[in-house]
Amino acid sequence: MTGKFIVIEGLEGAGKSTAIKQVTEELLLHGIENITATREPGGTPLAEQMRTLVKEGHPDEPLTDMAELLLLYAARSQLVENVIKPALARDSWVVGDRHDMSSQAYQGGGRGFDKQVMASLRDTVLGDFRPDLTIYMDIDPVLGLERARGRGELDRIEQMNIDFFHRARARFLELSEADPSVVIVDAGQSLEAVTADVRQAVKQWLEQQ
Amino acid sequence: MTGKFIVIEGLEGAGKSTAIKQVTEELLLHGIENITATREPGGTPLAEQMRTLVKEGHPDEPLTDMAELLLLYAARSQLVENVIKPALARDSWVVGDRHDMSSQAYQGGGRGFDKQVMASLRDTVLGDFRPDLTIYMDIDPVLGLERARGRGELDRIEQMNIDFFHRARARFLELSEADPSVVIVDAGQSLEAVTADVRQAVKQWLEQQ
Repeated sequence: MTGKFIVIEGLEGAGKSTAIKQVTEELLLHGIENITATREPGGTPLAEQMRTLVKEGHPDEPLTDMAELLLLYAARSQLVENVIKPALARDSWVVGDRHDMSSQAYQGGGRGFDKQVMASLRDTVLGDFRPDLTIYMDIDPVLGLERARGRGELDRIEQMNIDFFHRARARFLELSEADPSVVIVDAGQSLEAVTADVRQAVKQWLEQQ
Repeated sequence: MTGKFIVIEGLEGAGKSTAIKQVTEELLLHGIENITATREPGGTPLAEQMRTLVKEGHPDEPLTDMAELLLLYAARSQLVENVIKPALARDSWVVGDRHDMSSQAYQGGGRGFDKQVMASLRDTVLGDFRPDLTIYMDIDPVLGLERARGRGELDRIEQMNIDFFHRARARFLELSEADPSVVIVDAGQSLEAVTADVRQAVKQWLEQQ
């Protein structure tokens, strides 16, 4: 089997890290050992610098919503062209912590950028490059942020009003339901149940390949 | 008279800095003393960080043409929203060292990005915000780069092949000729002649206001 691109998406505190571990273990069980892990925004030296601009901003100057959006796509361009596509080309599998759907949800849904603008930017930057499988970890933002807060300080985006995250979740769900390459996992369940669902989703998808 | 946005455009070595000085002196002669100077990319703390990414790149990773383009527009968004528009709103004049036409010329003409993509990005980021007057300093790239080289080391963009600059110049000229708010100055003339043309262009434009 040639390399595939699997993405884990979801709000803060949805359990993406745990899900990524489960996905990776399931791939290994299936004999897939050549796996590249990525995270967005970031994952390359230049993209990490762009991530820092987005996450930290500047004490004396607000980052405009537009600059945030463009920085996220600049970072995505670096990661896709310099890491993900080369990995897939040498038959590595790629497991991504976030990808384009996060921008659609946070900047499109959360910040309220026009759907046309979001689609046009995605098409301009990514062409027809898309993940083969996306696992969307769905969680109520109140519960997710409670979990995220337990991990320590919140960054510039994690400090947004709860309504922002409700809008982002609604967009995540809307996109997931419309896209057959996305599996929705109820991340509000017990850790055991979530783990079982993620493993099952990957297993079933692998068997269909 | 309310604040206006005047931009100086042109290739490396076209004499933009000298032209900016002349424009500023002519404004002062006309009693306009509230002047904000900007440069692109850059001109705000965050935009300067984006400028550094574009100018220096990274020793271990190529900056994709797409990321370069998006960083330039992210920096432009910061400058326009946080500096230029607020300055104009308090009736300051703004004299800009480069603005959107540079992206149209270097990334559109030079790198070869599609005109549709360039126009759509400009409209998304800037809406209908445009300079009131642009002075385009036209120079043969061979002469311009010779002058720029005399100033010291060339950055990542200034090291491009000469054909890149010929394509950029062609796009600068094409846009300038199509836009009545642009005055073309022949920057290949003697310093005295160039200075006189720049002063004359500003003077004439001011008298028409």
